[in-house]
Amino acid sequence: MDLSERAEITRQIAVEAGELASTCFRQIDTLKIEKKGHQDFVSEADREVELLVRRHLADIFPEDAIVGEEHAPTKGSSGFTWVIDPIDGTANFVSAIPAWVVVIAGVENGQTCIGVIHDPCHDETFVAVRGQGATLNGRPISVARDSMIGDGTIGVGHSNRIATQKAAQLVAAILDAGGMFHRNASGALSLAYVASGRLLGYSEAHMNAWDCLAGQLLVAEAGGRVEDQDADRMIADGGRVIVAAPRVFDDLLRLSETAFA
Amino acid sequence: MDLSERAEITRQIAVEAGELASTCFRQIDTLKIEKKGHQDFVSEADREVELLVRRHLADIFPEDAIVGEEHAPTKGSSGFTWVIDPIDGTANFVSAIPAWVVVIAGVENGQTCIGVIHDPCHDETFVAVRGQGATLNGRPISVARDSMIGDGTIGVGHSNRIATQKAAQLVAAILDAGGMFHRNASGALSLAYVASGRLLGYSEAHMNAWDCLAGQLLVAEAGGRVEDQDADRMIADGGRVIVAAPRVFDDLLRLSETAFA
Repeated sequence: MDLSERAEITRQIAVEAGELASTCFRQIDTLKIEKKGHQDFVSEADREVELLVRRHLADIFPEDAIVGEEHAPTKGSSGFTWVIDPIDGTANFVSAIPAWVVVIAGVENGQTCIGVIHDPCHDETFVAVRGQGATLNGRPISVARDSMIGDGTIGVGHSNRIATQKAAQLVAAILDAGGMFHRNASGALSLAYVASGRLLGYSEAHMNAWDCLAGQLLVAEAGGRVEDQDADRMIADGGRVIVAAPRVFDDLLRLSETAFA
Repeated sequence: MDLSERAEITRQIAVEAGELASTCFRQIDTLKIEKKGHQDFVSEADREVELLVRRHLADIFPEDAIVGEEHAPTKGSSGFTWVIDPIDGTANFVSAIPAWVVVIAGVENGQTCIGVIHDPCHDETFVAVRGQGATLNGRPISVARDSMIGDGTIGVGHSNRIATQKAAQLVAAILDAGGMFHRNASGALSLAYVASGRLLGYSEAHMNAWDCLAGQLLVAEAGGRVEDQDADRMIADGGRVIVAAPRVFDDLLRLSETAFA
């Protein structure tokens, strides 16, 4: 099966996973239970959505490996690995904020070759196939080709895996460079927004593979620049993620290196 | 006409304004023009939406004053003032990011007594009436009553009216206090999210009255704490805005005072 056929199947699985996740999401705001109960409900939804994606992938591609955020990895024999984040942006999900996505990436020989980010709340599906460009709901997308850092907004990410001052210094550096920052608490959604020119770039000191591989391919295929990384090493350890529109990338890389030092 | 009747009319106007704004928003992503063209298109949409709101308010409440972001103030004789932000979050709007709202507040004797924030992308309308509580699509809402600063996310705002280090220091202070930050680039939407318990609080060194009065009333009526301000002085000059859930407010006030000093 060629990559574009694989990508179409991936897209369909992401949409079905998004429907299951949405059913849970619509219940969040009316759950009359304490925060801890919300968190348990969302963790359960997260696991169920990943199981749905795993089931479909294992049926269709039984020889591929699968790595997901919520369950133990499944080994494969084909050299092709699927990397799943069933719900990226769970802090939003648990708080009923409509900014979370289903993420599926396909990796072969250390390279991401398929990236799908599906946003069920807004019915937007971002798909990238290595060498074949990036689309939003089937329509080609492009990063903000002509923009400089002062012309728009940079997404920033932060997790509790990283020292707090790195994110704060990045925010300070972006503002001092005449830019503006944004943190919507879904790294994958932010990367999709860079690919579609809605944000100028994105920087985070550490992301896991399931959060970033699909989005990095989307940005690259949409004409953006992406700090090079080996996908297999990202699957093992995660790493820092810096992507941007072509005329923004060098500035964001420099600001990030200083902030993360 | 009593306040709840006025609020219902305000809600209807905000929804109609949202429909007009949405029609423009759906065209943004497909506009094949350069960024400056987008900005002009959005500025025009902003003005048109405000004119629609002004027309309805002037028809129904001819003796009231009207203040809006986009057009010169209209004087009144009733002592009641309407304060309008036709599109809060224009940076999102112009970039096709679905996080922007229509905002209408009603002010009498230096006090905001009606606050409506309508989010057309998600069909959510937040309404507060002084002394009568706050609702989302007609259902009562509440701030995150039991949460402490480490239990969720604080919204932060920044505009180019303020020195960059204030926002960066606020981000650093929130992270160092064990909290998390969020900036969705619509202050009014963030305030509505505080009122509905989705965010724990919101802090910005300077907001204009049209961005904040409705949201401050929403938070107060939803059981949150709001730094006291005279609405008439806010209309004249704007000011800093700090709101939060009851057990978060003192911490956020302290962190904000240090950051903004």
